[in-house]
Amino acid sequence: MRYELYYWPSIQGRGEYVRLALEQGGAEYIDVARTPKGLAAMKRLLADGAASRPPFAPPFLVRGKTLVAQTANILQYLGPKLGLVPKDEAERLWVHQVQLTIADFVVEAHDTHHPIGVGLYYDEQKPESKRRAKDFRDQRMPKYLGYFERVLARNRGFTAGRKVTYADLSLFQVVAGLRYAFPRAMRSIEPRLPQLVALHDRVAALPRIAAYLSSPRRIAFNQFGIFRHYPELDGPVRT
Amino acid sequence: MRYELYYWPSIQGRGEYVRLALEQGGAEYIDVARTPKGLAAMKRLLADGAASRPPFAPPFLVRGKTLVAQTANILQYLGPKLGLVPKDEAERLWVHQVQLTIADFVVEAHDTHHPIGVGLYYDEQKPESKRRAKDFRDQRMPKYLGYFERVLARNRGFTAGRKVTYADLSLFQVVAGLRYAFPRAMRSIEPRLPQLVALHDRVAALPRIAAYLSSPRRIAFNQFGIFRHYPELDGPVRT
Repeated sequence: MRYELYYWPSIQGRGEYVRLALEQGGAEYIDVARTPKGLAAMKRLLADGAASRPPFAPPFLVRGKTLVAQTANILQYLGPKLGLVPKDEAERLWVHQVQLTIADFVVEAHDTHHPIGVGLYYDEQKPESKRRAKDFRDQRMPKYLGYFERVLARNRGFTAGRKVTYADLSLFQVVAGLRYAFPRAMRSIEPRLPQLVALHDRVAALPRIAAYLSSPRRIAFNQFGIFRHYPELDGPVRT
Repeated sequence: MRYELYYWPSIQGRGEYVRLALEQGGAEYIDVARTPKGLAAMKRLLADGAASRPPFAPPFLVRGKTLVAQTANILQYLGPKLGLVPKDEAERLWVHQVQLTIADFVVEAHDTHHPIGVGLYYDEQKPESKRRAKDFRDQRMPKYLGYFERVLARNRGFTAGRKVTYADLSLFQVVAGLRYAFPRAMRSIEPRLPQLVALHDRVAALPRIAAYLSSPRRIAFNQFGIFRHYPELDGPVRT
């Protein structure tokens, strides 16, 4: 049965973590909002006041009668179906735990350009963004990325087991996103993160991911997504 | 087997969602960091560079050889063991989805007094806090609370099934926390949230929860937790 992914059609955003899992899992799926009338269909589902299991926000995934929302929850649902998580229950809890930590970090990356309100433009919160971005670069990036580095070092280069999990795919995306948004910060901190950089390269070289990344299905990073490049928010990590 | 909860000993914080589940589930547990030498034990576990499954931050729960971190992940782990989630797999995904949405909202509630950096004092980010808190009251509270209200209205007053789930316990905590932090905002918006208010009261009246709330195990709200009362950040919801 085909998966239907609902997410904003012009950004990678949180939908990208799901896209990467679907692609690496070899799943048959459609990116609904990128098809004709798909965006309207997504908005109808979001506005459906009668639904007993409504999604709060995209992304959400539909398969038959099942609708699953919240990025980490979608990945947890897909993991066993697409072979992207070990079989053991304790291992699955662990991978989900890492994914939730990635999700926390992604919120903080987003808030560097929206520290005051998601409904406001970046230009309306620029001084606050500069302060928050500096704290993010000097405090939060080393803390989170150092944690992920330690996890990979203790687990033979993957989050768990001996092959790629959905959390590894998400870590690839985090590295790619940070390189786009904060190239100077990443250049200064990457020498401390050999495992994370190696994982990024390993994921990018997976045949299905490589094919995806060079296809039109991969939306380019841009200034509307979670990772945005504002040169004034970037700079070397000073810790 | 006894559960060991590790969390900061002087605040409700994120640990409170776990405490409420353990209490309502009638679990045998110890709140480790509140026992003699417990805080040092927690810090040792956090600093253990050799662990292959390290927690990023408290809360985390230990049972025998299992260590689970990330609040929503802990609750998902406890749910079936403590009878706080329906049996059906799709229902469990749904309850977890609601919990993750609560978690997102809790981050935003926290960031009203820390919009620039968690490592900075409130006094170092007061003007930014005022702007963020206004956005939170006028935009985010109605959006999230309206969503939870709709969910309860479509599901007979609970998140799922016919009895309390861990997500319902967490919604109780959200209402209690917002009433402490934003009393004026809550007074102005509660008339629009009859289901949520009713759920709060129903949870507070559960015998085990009522006993817990009036015990010394319940830490009082204070100015170090996630929900903090700064009068200058409060005001009526204008939407």
